[in-house]
Amino acid sequence: MTDRRHPLRGLTPDEMKHAAAVLKKTLQQNAGGSTDNIRFQHITLDEPPKALLLPYLDAESAGVEPLKRPWVPRCARITWSHVHERQDCETVVSLDTEAEVTHIDHQAPQHNGLDRDEVIAATIAILTDPAVVAEIKKFQLPENVAVQCDTWPFGTDLSSKEDDPKLIQTILYARAPHNHLESNQYSFPIPISPVYDPFLKRVIRIDTVATGGKEDGLKHNTVAPEVALKHLVENEYHSDLQKGNLRKDIKPLLIVQPEGVSFTVEDETKISWQKWTFRVGFNWREGMTIHDVRYDGRKLFYRLSMSEMTVPYGDPRSPHHRRQAFDLGDAGAGITANNLSLGCDCLGTIQYFDGCLSDSAGEPYKAPNVICLHEQDNGIGWKHTNPRTDVAAITRARILVVQSIITVGNYEYIFAWHFTQSGAIEFETHATGILATSLIDKGKTSFWGNVVSPGILAANHQHLFCLRIDPMIDGLENTVIQEDTVAIPYSRQENPNGNAWKVVKTPVESSGFADAAPEKNRVFKVVNEKKINAISGSPVGFKVVAQATQLLIADQCSTVRRRARFAEHHLWVTKYRDGELYAGGHKTNQSHDETGGVFDAASRSENVRNTDVVVWQTYGMTHNPRVEDYPVMPVEILTVALKPVDFFEKNPALDVPPSTQSINKSVLVGQADQS
Amino acid sequence: MTDRRHPLRGLTPDEMKHAAAVLKKTLQQNAGGSTDNIRFQHITLDEPPKALLLPYLDAESAGVEPLKRPWVPRCARITWSHVHERQDCETVVSLDTEAEVTHIDHQAPQHNGLDRDEVIAATIAILTDPAVVAEIKKFQLPENVAVQCDTWPFGTDLSSKEDDPKLIQTILYARAPHNHLESNQYSFPIPISPVYDPFLKRVIRIDTVATGGKEDGLKHNTVAPEVALKHLVENEYHSDLQKGNLRKDIKPLLIVQPEGVSFTVEDETKISWQKWTFRVGFNWREGMTIHDVRYDGRKLFYRLSMSEMTVPYGDPRSPHHRRQAFDLGDAGAGITANNLSLGCDCLGTIQYFDGCLSDSAGEPYKAPNVICLHEQDNGIGWKHTNPRTDVAAITRARILVVQSIITVGNYEYIFAWHFTQSGAIEFETHATGILATSLIDKGKTSFWGNVVSPGILAANHQHLFCLRIDPMIDGLENTVIQEDTVAIPYSRQENPNGNAWKVVKTPVESSGFADAAPEKNRVFKVVNEKKINAISGSPVGFKVVAQATQLLIADQCSTVRRRARFAEHHLWVTKYRDGELYAGGHKTNQSHDETGGVFDAASRSENVRNTDVVVWQTYGMTHNPRVEDYPVMPVEILTVALKPVDFFEKNPALDVPPSTQSINKSVLVGQADQS
Repeated sequence: MTDRRHPLRGLTPDEMKHAAAVLKKTLQQNAGGSTDNIRFQHITLDEPPKALLLPYLDAESAGVEPLKRPWVPRCARITWSHVHERQDCETVVSLDTEAEVTHIDHQAPQHNGLDRDEVIAATIAILTDPAVVAEIKKFQLPENVAVQCDTWPFGTDLSSKEDDPKLIQTILYARAPHNHLESNQYSFPIPISPVYDPFLKRVIRIDTVATGGKEDGLKHNTVAPEVALKHLVENEYHSDLQKGNLRKDIKPLLIVQPEGVSFTVEDETKISWQKWTFRVGFNWREGMTIHDVRYDGRKLFYRLSMSEMTVPYGDPRSPHHRRQAFDLGDAGAGITANNLSLGCDCLGTIQYFDGCLSDSAGEPYKAPNVICLHEQDNGIGWKHTNPRTDVAAITRARILVVQSIITVGNYEYIFAWHFTQSGAIEFETHATGILATSLIDKGKTSFWGNVVSPGILAANHQHLFCLRIDPMIDGLENTVIQEDTVAIPYSRQENPNGNAWKVVKTPVESSGFADAAPEKNRVFKVVNEKKINAISGSPVGFKVVAQATQLLIADQCSTVRRRARFAEHHLWVTKYRDGELYAGGHKTNQSHDETGGVFDAASRSENVRNTDVVVWQTYGMTHNPRVEDYPVMPVEILTVALKPVDFFEKNPALDVPPSTQSINKSVLVGQADQS
Repeated sequence: MTDRRHPLRGLTPDEMKHAAAVLKKTLQQNAGGSTDNIRFQHITLDEPPKALLLPYLDAESAGVEPLKRPWVPRCARITWSHVHERQDCETVVSLDTEAEVTHIDHQAPQHNGLDRDEVIAATIAILTDPAVVAEIKKFQLPENVAVQCDTWPFGTDLSSKEDDPKLIQTILYARAPHNHLESNQYSFPIPISPVYDPFLKRVIRIDTVATGGKEDGLKHNTVAPEVALKHLVENEYHSDLQKGNLRKDIKPLLIVQPEGVSFTVEDETKISWQKWTFRVGFNWREGMTIHDVRYDGRKLFYRLSMSEMTVPYGDPRSPHHRRQAFDLGDAGAGITANNLSLGCDCLGTIQYFDGCLSDSAGEPYKAPNVICLHEQDNGIGWKHTNPRTDVAAITRARILVVQSIITVGNYEYIFAWHFTQSGAIEFETHATGILATSLIDKGKTSFWGNVVSPGILAANHQHLFCLRIDPMIDGLENTVIQEDTVAIPYSRQENPNGNAWKVVKTPVESSGFADAAPEKNRVFKVVNEKKINAISGSPVGFKVVAQATQLLIADQCSTVRRRARFAEHHLWVTKYRDGELYAGGHKTNQSHDETGGVFDAASRSENVRNTDVVVWQTYGMTHNPRVEDYPVMPVEILTVALKPVDFFEKNPALDVPPSTQSINKSVLVGQADQS
């Protein structure tokens, strides 16, 4: 059965069930019959080793029919818990042989992330816990107010012990006192934080939350609970709750593709468009992934993925200091992926991709429309007007967009890969959604954030992302080159007019890191030193173009920083190893240190010249909130681009047909629409 | 007549003629009758002093009818030459009183820029000059080859004298040996550079152009002319010349606005859209300008403009070292503005604006479609999915785009103002067009650029732009604040978990400059310290968000740098003065120093706190060309954003209606198009 499915296609529901059965059987054999102790978290495809997969992909690219391509093993990776031991494990099983392939045992203090069923169960248990109910009562909320509970991974805490149990911290909110289900809870934070043990299934303590301002420093305030929330007001984002105040002067704008789309999708996940071919993948942790990217048959990227992100908050007061989410490792970009809908998340002619995930019983379920695919007009591609003839040569830039949107509690991220006609790939990260809020006493302001609504403190925070780029520029033997543009001092010999500069190229020889240096126009290129561009005489390559954004601010000795070493530098270069996919380490939840992440990989000091390298690009935003970011935040966008540099022998978009009115059918204002 | 025209609308053709007549009359009176000595360059509106104009604009904003608004003078600025004296001048005349208002005499070594008629005359004279023809003949070009001539401002030259005459340097190219007028000349550079005096109307010398490579250093090579060009090959960008190799698999994508546009244009240049109102202006030098920007009636920006750009090249060899263009001051973004066309430069429903310019006789002529206005869908505006109900609240981000495209010889710039629904304004600069090329001997490579086609060296260069931002954030009394995000060291008292940081705000007290510091997340805000945001307690403001790009590289003592001090720092803050519009100085052509530019304005060390300030943002790109940038370059985009920071009391896009399929009418792949 499995030998006919493409090795990059996710597990089928049957394969998931098969994998769960194999694990149960293995454990039954070990534990003498009982499987009571097993709680499933995730069952997903364990991608094959590159040494086996790449020959398969090369055969596919060469047109070899599926059954004649090299054999590739089919394995499933299962994340699961020993419930009684309160321990988290991970096991890879072979679907071919039904044997255990690898097993990772519990590694204190790290835990697996929180799964969906765990979060739902926690929420119910916390909101019905008598001690929690009693505490909430003290705030004298109006009768018809619903209290809601946001679960958070239990982040940094210097008081943690190595044998810490798995914990969930929570933030409680009230909904505005009416019955609309979409009323914005984040304007009504209740300053208590129950801490819950998901294995014991009970609240182990209730922390009180600091609500003071500049005046109070780090001290907890002493406002009486019956007045603590009185200054809060509704601040709604949902259109139903705008009291009819919606704009009425925005006319429809439609994207129409009368002849359909320019892309094709084969075998469910293989996409071809404008000389590009690639596979799209999906898993619970990374969400959308991109594989086997080729242009006109030439190899470019083996795998592209959002590897990890961390969101540390800058409020030092307890328990605010514990807010540091790893939204992939702790939550999962697949689990939190939105069900995208037509006409909302993108316009035009859209193709959706479903995912398949599994629940705590190991049962598969469909995650519908988790990825969308469509084309966009992206403005002018290139233009030149010949001043002698006034003839304009102009093309539109069409792009292909592969997009996924995740909701991690209050916050949204839009991830979108843009494939262009000029040989570049861009990865866009859009941040939107609702700020994490906490209560601040009436009339106070804070060093640690901004008051964005009466009584609502939006804490300063960072979003630090790490994009994993696994290149194969005309083959696997690649080198990363740091290229700086450096002034040459005035000299009669070399720079007699003082106008010249030099381009200094430094190949990265050993695995490690480098930082952005926009003052030197620093560029990082991945090149194939054995393939020389016939025009320029330079090695063919792609450059990684990212904004030089602020790195992790937290103190050198802080747990925040120790957990997220990947966010200490902009660019990391490591030697490829199978399975080394996560910048922040394999397990991030309750980690005290980044373990098995990019820092460890770089620390191996391996040769990375003319070999199979991986590039990790860290970028982010320091978000000291504006009032305008509330109650829902306009998108902020960051882009990382992969652009050919002397890879082609001329502008690859030269053959895009000219932009003409006969095709594009634009109209003048006041003219009748021609559509 | 003039008192009824809005003071920000450009001169009518009649006003231009009137202005020319006033100047002639004045000069006749002074010179005893003759006007033979006058050669016109440009006649344009001289914008009124802010002290007179702003009350008029406030009255307009308050709904006062035109004739009851304060009186504002109407003046014309005339750029012209004393032909016999070989001198350049500028005079402002009143159209109300017919008197001379101000006069700027010739200021050696600076000259006015090159005008269109001057360039055309130079081109003809150079290409028919017997000495030039004889030199070209030595290269033994095929019979049917047309030779073409690109004129360049005569840039930096340390050998220049203060009494230097006005000069034009040129680069000669051959067209490919067939008759297509759109054949790309830039693949056939001829290594001689005639230097022309536009007042004497003759070639004063012919420079030879270095064509060597790394091997030759700064030495001129000695390749015999009859073989010098033999290794060149055609490399065409025009679709006619792609030999039928155009892509056939890109399907049409139409932007359809069935109910028309959401904006209105009154009085020809006043634009209203989604709570925004502003005026668009146009002049020969800056091209498109934006005036009197208000949001929901609140004052935001008095004037926004691309102020200057400089494009220095990094090849130290003569005469390459002289290439440093100031594309506004030397050429003019109005003069070089493209005639935009429907369905090519933008899609959807478009409104065009014409400009009016004047020729060397002082005669007005129409510059059609120099600015276009249209709406675009810009992706998701904001989104939140309520994880409890799975209900997604989502809006599309519509933007209003005001765009102009200029062609400066070989190169194109697209300038576009984006007005958003979330209160932000973005200014996009797109670079495209054809690289400036020079000849390189067969098989050689260079330190100073990249070989992008056989025998074609594209020199390294920079594009350094300066955006002038004249704010009026809730009034004229504004302050610029530099805000850094700075780590707090671990301490038991202040930062017991090491996770906190502080936001350090430093008001700029005295006119001067500052530089980007992305490692500190440095942000520059323009605030009104007297208007406090009721929610946050902070002054209302807008931030200026630009990428931290490399500044001018040229040596401290170089003429290149002395001419473009504005490009030494990212941000300048000056106290407003009428007419102080040009970062690189009033006259840039053949300047030896930036004179009257932003450096001089900042050097006045004036108080800039709580007063009428101007912010100048420098940004740019160091362009070490890729092979992919030839024969025409895919757009590279830089964005400067002006974003509200505690200016509003919530997300201003909160009232954008939700995005729905019933309005947006998207379709699934394979479904029939519903349009």
